[in-house]
Amino acid sequence: MTSQKEPQEGPSSLTKVTGPSSWSRVSCPCCISSHIEPLVLIQLAESVQPITKQWIMSMISAPVKTGGAQLLVHPGEDMKGDMIVVAAPRCTLLRVTEDLGLCKTYQDGNMTAFSFDDRDNFCNIDDMQKFLTLAERQYIIKYQVDSMRAMEDQRIPGIPTPKGKLKARESILQKLEKAGVIRNVTPLHEQKLLTALGKQWYSQKSLWGQPLDSIHAYFGGTIAYYFSFLDFYTLSLFPPAILGLFITFFLPSANFSSGNKTDSEPTPPKDDDDQPSVSSYMVQAVFSMLWSTIFMELWKRRSASLSYRWGTFNLAEQFQEPRPGFHGELGTNPVTGRLEPLFPEWKRRLRMGLVSVPVVGVFLGLVVMGMAGFYFCERLVSNWHKGSGSYFTAILLYLPSIAHIVYTNVLGNIYRNVALRLTESENHREESSFDYHHTTKVLVFTFFNNFAVLFHIAFFKEDMPLLRKRLASLLIVTQVVNQFTEVVVPFLVDRFLSSGDRNLKEDDPEVDRLQAQGSLPAFPGLFAEYIELLVQFGYLSLFSCVYPLTAPLLLLNNLTEIRTDAYKLCKLFNKPFSAPVANMGVWQPAFEVLSFISVMSNCWLLLLSPHVKEFTQEAGLSTNKVLVIAVIVEHVLIMVKMILAFMIPDEPDWLRIKREQIEYHSMQALKKQRIKSSRVDDKLSPNAKMGE
Amino acid sequence: MTSQKEPQEGPSSLTKVTGPSSWSRVSCPCCISSHIEPLVLIQLAESVQPITKQWIMSMISAPVKTGGAQLLVHPGEDMKGDMIVVAAPRCTLLRVTEDLGLCKTYQDGNMTAFSFDDRDNFCNIDDMQKFLTLAERQYIIKYQVDSMRAMEDQRIPGIPTPKGKLKARESILQKLEKAGVIRNVTPLHEQKLLTALGKQWYSQKSLWGQPLDSIHAYFGGTIAYYFSFLDFYTLSLFPPAILGLFITFFLPSANFSSGNKTDSEPTPPKDDDDQPSVSSYMVQAVFSMLWSTIFMELWKRRSASLSYRWGTFNLAEQFQEPRPGFHGELGTNPVTGRLEPLFPEWKRRLRMGLVSVPVVGVFLGLVVMGMAGFYFCERLVSNWHKGSGSYFTAILLYLPSIAHIVYTNVLGNIYRNVALRLTESENHREESSFDYHHTTKVLVFTFFNNFAVLFHIAFFKEDMPLLRKRLASLLIVTQVVNQFTEVVVPFLVDRFLSSGDRNLKEDDPEVDRLQAQGSLPAFPGLFAEYIELLVQFGYLSLFSCVYPLTAPLLLLNNLTEIRTDAYKLCKLFNKPFSAPVANMGVWQPAFEVLSFISVMSNCWLLLLSPHVKEFTQEAGLSTNKVLVIAVIVEHVLIMVKMILAFMIPDEPDWLRIKREQIEYHSMQALKKQRIKSSRVDDKLSPNAKMGE
Repeated sequence: MTSQKEPQEGPSSLTKVTGPSSWSRVSCPCCISSHIEPLVLIQLAESVQPITKQWIMSMISAPVKTGGAQLLVHPGEDMKGDMIVVAAPRCTLLRVTEDLGLCKTYQDGNMTAFSFDDRDNFCNIDDMQKFLTLAERQYIIKYQVDSMRAMEDQRIPGIPTPKGKLKARESILQKLEKAGVIRNVTPLHEQKLLTALGKQWYSQKSLWGQPLDSIHAYFGGTIAYYFSFLDFYTLSLFPPAILGLFITFFLPSANFSSGNKTDSEPTPPKDDDDQPSVSSYMVQAVFSMLWSTIFMELWKRRSASLSYRWGTFNLAEQFQEPRPGFHGELGTNPVTGRLEPLFPEWKRRLRMGLVSVPVVGVFLGLVVMGMAGFYFCERLVSNWHKGSGSYFTAILLYLPSIAHIVYTNVLGNIYRNVALRLTESENHREESSFDYHHTTKVLVFTFFNNFAVLFHIAFFKEDMPLLRKRLASLLIVTQVVNQFTEVVVPFLVDRFLSSGDRNLKEDDPEVDRLQAQGSLPAFPGLFAEYIELLVQFGYLSLFSCVYPLTAPLLLLNNLTEIRTDAYKLCKLFNKPFSAPVANMGVWQPAFEVLSFISVMSNCWLLLLSPHVKEFTQEAGLSTNKVLVIAVIVEHVLIMVKMILAFMIPDEPDWLRIKREQIEYHSMQALKKQRIKSSRVDDKLSPNAKMGE
Repeated sequence: MTSQKEPQEGPSSLTKVTGPSSWSRVSCPCCISSHIEPLVLIQLAESVQPITKQWIMSMISAPVKTGGAQLLVHPGEDMKGDMIVVAAPRCTLLRVTEDLGLCKTYQDGNMTAFSFDDRDNFCNIDDMQKFLTLAERQYIIKYQVDSMRAMEDQRIPGIPTPKGKLKARESILQKLEKAGVIRNVTPLHEQKLLTALGKQWYSQKSLWGQPLDSIHAYFGGTIAYYFSFLDFYTLSLFPPAILGLFITFFLPSANFSSGNKTDSEPTPPKDDDDQPSVSSYMVQAVFSMLWSTIFMELWKRRSASLSYRWGTFNLAEQFQEPRPGFHGELGTNPVTGRLEPLFPEWKRRLRMGLVSVPVVGVFLGLVVMGMAGFYFCERLVSNWHKGSGSYFTAILLYLPSIAHIVYTNVLGNIYRNVALRLTESENHREESSFDYHHTTKVLVFTFFNNFAVLFHIAFFKEDMPLLRKRLASLLIVTQVVNQFTEVVVPFLVDRFLSSGDRNLKEDDPEVDRLQAQGSLPAFPGLFAEYIELLVQFGYLSLFSCVYPLTAPLLLLNNLTEIRTDAYKLCKLFNKPFSAPVANMGVWQPAFEVLSFISVMSNCWLLLLSPHVKEFTQEAGLSTNKVLVIAVIVEHVLIMVKMILAFMIPDEPDWLRIKREQIEYHSMQALKKQRIKSSRVDDKLSPNAKMGE
C-alpha cells in the first residue's frame, strides 16, 4: 500500500553536492532535467588507468546503437578515482521498461504492458520516481550495462592485449569483470527510505504483517517474493503447530504394544513412552498431506495476485535480448527479427538429458556411497574397539565421522563447480531459465545430502525412535546455528572489526558514503534462505508424523527468521540487484514436488511403524497383502491430493479474466493490423464491402 | 496432400435437378451464386404440420440478429414433406470460419487465423469448395443451426403449448428435438468423393498409408484424428511385436526354478514350461516402459504438426458462443463483451470435486464389491457342490457368473446415465470441455470394469499362469467378437434386411438418394473405437511382460481394424458431424496416464513373479528390504520416463517458432492499436515526439 510513496523524496544528496554539471550530457532534449538521481555504483580496481575509466564512461553514456548503454555517468569525486556513478535518463528508463514487458497502471486503471509510443496514457509518467520503483530503476541500469556489446573487434584502451581484446558482439561488462577492471556493480542505498523501511519491517513491535509493497519497491522482485512466501508460510504453520502441540501434550500416548507381544520380533529400542499411537500417526500423516496441498495451492493464488499487483504478470523474456553468456551461431531470431546468437532447443535438451542428468545422478550416487562407506567403517571400527578396547581404537572411533564430513564437504564443493559448468554448457537463452536450471541442480544435491541419512534411518534401519531423536536435534540445533551464523557473526563483524573503515554520520561528505557502501560484503543471494525453508518444510511434511513438535518449532524459528533476514538485508550487506519476476521461480515446483514425496514417505512410515506391523499381524494379513494395500492407499492419497489441487484454481478468477481479455484483444488487434497493412496495395471490391 | 482436390467437383446433382430457384433467397448480393451446394439434411417427424416446417425454414434462413442461422434452405421435393435441405451462403461460411478461429493459408504462405475483414488476402477465397473442406462447411451449418435462439418468449406455430413454448434465449434446435419435431440432422454424403476416398482407403492393396488429408477433408477433425492415431499406433507396434515374437520363439524358456527348489514355498500351478525367464521379464518390462513413453511423445509431435496442417492450432473456443446446453445468469462476458449466460468457475470446480468425483468413486467401489461378491459366492457354491455333489448344485455353479454379468450390465447402464447427468450439472461452457469431462467419466468406469479382474488375478491371487491364460483369451476372443459385431453384423443387416428400402443406383432420382441417406443408422461415435484401442494398449503396457505375444496379436488386429473402421464409416452409417479439433482430446492424457500406471504395474509384476521371489530369498533379503528396493526402482523408472518425456519436445521447433511469432506480433499489434485509439483525443507534446 505504501509502495508508491518513497520515491517522492527530493533530489538525492549526491546531486546536491556535485550538481548536475559534472554528469555526462544527454542527447535527447526531453531528458534534460535539473535533478539527476544517482542509482548504481561501479567500483573499479584501484590499478585502473584513467584512460580505461574514460573509455568505460564513454561506453556507458554512448547510444545503444553503437553498443553503449545510453546512461548518465559521473566520475565520482574521490581521490583514488576508482568509482563510476551511473544514473539513467528518462528515455532509457522508459524504453527498457517496454523491453522488459513490465506492466504499469494505464489511464483506465488496469495494469497494462508499457509501450513507449503510448507513454502519455500511463499514470505518473511525468515523475520517473513514482512511475518506476527504485529497484526497477536500478535493475534497468544493470540490464543496460549488461547488454553493452562491442560492435566490432576492438581493444580496450589501457589494458594489455590478451585481456583487452574485444571480439565483435562480445559482452563488454563480462570482459571487464574477467579482466579484473570492474570489481563490482552495486545499486546504491537511499538512506532515508531504508531507515523508514527498517522501522516498518524489523523494528516494529507487532508480530505480523511485513510491508511487502515497500520491500518490493525498495529491494525488487525476487527479494519481495522471498519475503512474501516466508510471510505466507509462517502464517500457514499455525494449524499444524496447534495440532502438533495438541497431540504432544493432550493425547494419551499408547503403550499397548510394549507389554503383550515380546516374542514376535526384535522390538525397537526401549524409550517407547513418548511414542505417538497409531491413530495420532494417521491423523498427523493425513493432515500433513492435506495441509501441504492446500498451502501450496493458496500460495499459487497469492503469488499470481502479487505478480499482477507488481506488474510482472506479462513478462516475456523470450522476446528480450539473450543473456550475456549466451552463445551460438549468429542469425536472425525468427520471432523478433533481431540479429542475435541462435542455439537450437533440441541440442539443449539433448545436453540436459544425456549429460546433466546422468552427471547429477552420479554425484547423488556418490553421496549414497559416502553414507554407506561411513556406516560400514563405523561398524568395522566399533567392532574392532569392542575387541581390543584400547585407547588407540577409542580415538579411531571418531575417524569415520571425520572422514565422512571431509568427504561430504569436498564433494559439495566439486559439485557446485560442476553444476555451474553443466548449466553453462546447456547454454540457456534467458537469465531466468539459466537460474532455474542451475538452482535445480544445486538444490537436488543439497536436499539429497540433507535427507539421505534420515531416509536411511527411516526405511533401511527402520528405527523410529532414532529418527525422532535425530529430527529433534536437527530442528533445534540447525535453528540455533543458523540464526547465529546468519546474523550474530556478521553483526559483530560489522560493529567491531570493520567499523573503523566506514564511520559514517549524517554530515559526512557524499563520497565517503559511496565508499562505505562499496565496502560492505556482497549479498550472498537467496539460495541459502530458500533451501533452509525447503529443508524445514521437508522435515515437516516428510517426517512430521514421527515427531509432532516439528511444526511448533518451525513456527518459532520463522518468526525470528523474518526479522533477522530483514535486518541482515538492510544493514549487513550491499544492496543486491533484484529482477522483476512473476513468481518465486524454481522454488515453487520444489515445494510442490516435496509435498508429493511426502505422501509416499508418510505412507511408508505408517506401514513400517511397529504398531501397524503388529496390527496387520494380528489381522492375519500376509506381507504381500499389506504391501498391495499400502500401494493402493498411497495412490488413492495421491489422487485425493491431485483432486484437491485441481479444485483450487492456480489464479483468482479476476486475474484469469484479465489475462483472457488481453489475449482476446491482442488477437483482435493482430487481425485489424493485418487489414491495415494490406489495405495499402489492395483495392476492396464493391461487393465485398456490401457483404458486411 | 490430396485434401484440396475433391471440392473442385462441379455443382452437386441436387442443384442440377431442382435448380437454384427453389432455394430461399440470400440477402447479400455477394452470395448470389448460380450453384448452391446442398450440405445438410434435416429430417422432421412425419406428423409435422406444414406451418411448423415453414417456421423452421424461415428461422434457418433468417439473419443471425433475429436469432436465425442465416443459411439457405430448400423444402426437399418428396411427397411426405419431412425433409429440409440446408446450404450455406458465402458470407455465413466466412464469418463462422472466423468465429471458430480456423486458420487458412495467407498470401504469404503461412497458416493464419482467418479474418473476415481481411478475407481478400487469403488463398482460394473465391472458391468456397477449395477454401473450406466439405466437413468444415457442414460443421459450420451445424454450428449455425445449433446457435439459433429465440429472441423473446414465443410459440412455435403448429405445436401445442407446453412443448411449443420458447423462452427468451432458449436454443431453438434443442427445443425442436425435445418436442420430437426434428428427428435428426445429418451432413450429406458426396457420392463421387466418397467412392474415390473409399478406393484410396480400404480397397487398396497396400497395407500402409491412409489418405489422412482426404479423410480430414471429407469427414472432419475428430475422425481424422482417430485414424491418424490408429495409423501411428499400428506403425509403432512393430518394435514390441518383433520383440514379443523373438522372446516367444527364440529365447529358451528358463526352467531352472522347477527342479531344484521344491521345499521353499507352494509353487504356482504346473504349466510352467512356456513361462518366460526372469531376464526376458525384465527386458519386456523395461522395453515396454520406454516404448510407451517414446510412442506418446512422438505422437504429440505428430498431433501438433497435424493441427497446424489442418489449420486448427489456434482455435479459441472460450471466445466463441457457449454451447447450447450451457445455462447461468445472463450477463456480459467480461472478455468478449457479449451478452450471454455466465457461470462462475469455482462453482463448477466445487461440483466436480465434491459431487462428481465422489459419485464416480462410489461406482468404482460398486464394481469392486461386485467382483468380491462374485468370488465369494463362487467359492461358497463350489464348496457346497463338493459337499453335496447333486445335480441341483451343479446348476447353481453357473449362478454367480450369471449374477455378476447381470449386475455389471445393470451397473454400467445406470452409470452411463449418472455420468451424463453429472457432466450436465457441471455446466461446462464449451462443447469440447463437456465432451472431455463426460468421456473421462465413462472411460474411467469402462477401464476399471475391464481391468479390475486382471488386477485382482495379478496382485491378489498372484497367479501368473492364470493371468497369462486370461490375457490370451481376452486378446483373441475380443478381437474376433469386435470385428464380428462391428462389421459383419451391420454389413449383413445392410445387405439383406434393409436393402429393399434404399436400392439406389446412379440414375435414381435425387430425392430417393436423400431419403436413403436419412435411413441409415446414426454413427455411434468414436468412444467405442477409442476405448478398444485404450484397453488393448492397457493389455500391452500393463501386462505384456506376462504374455509376450500381446503385441503381435494387437498388430494383426489393428491392421484389420483400420480397414473395417473405414468401411463401416463410409458405407454402414450416416455421415457424422465432426468438429475441427487440435488434438484427440481426452484420449491423449488417457493413454499417457495408462503408460504411467504401466511402470508401476510392471514393477510389481516383476516383484511378484515367482522367479524373482526365489532370487531374493536366495540372496537373503528380508521382505521389507525387497519392498523398499522395489519402491526405489519404481520411482527411478518413473523419473527416467519423465526425463525422456522432457527431452522430446511436445511440438516440433518450427511450430513453436510459428506460435511465438503469432504471440509476439499480436503483442505488438495490441500496443499499436492502443496508441491509435488514444491519438484521437490526445495531443502529443512536442518533446515526447523528440524523445524518439
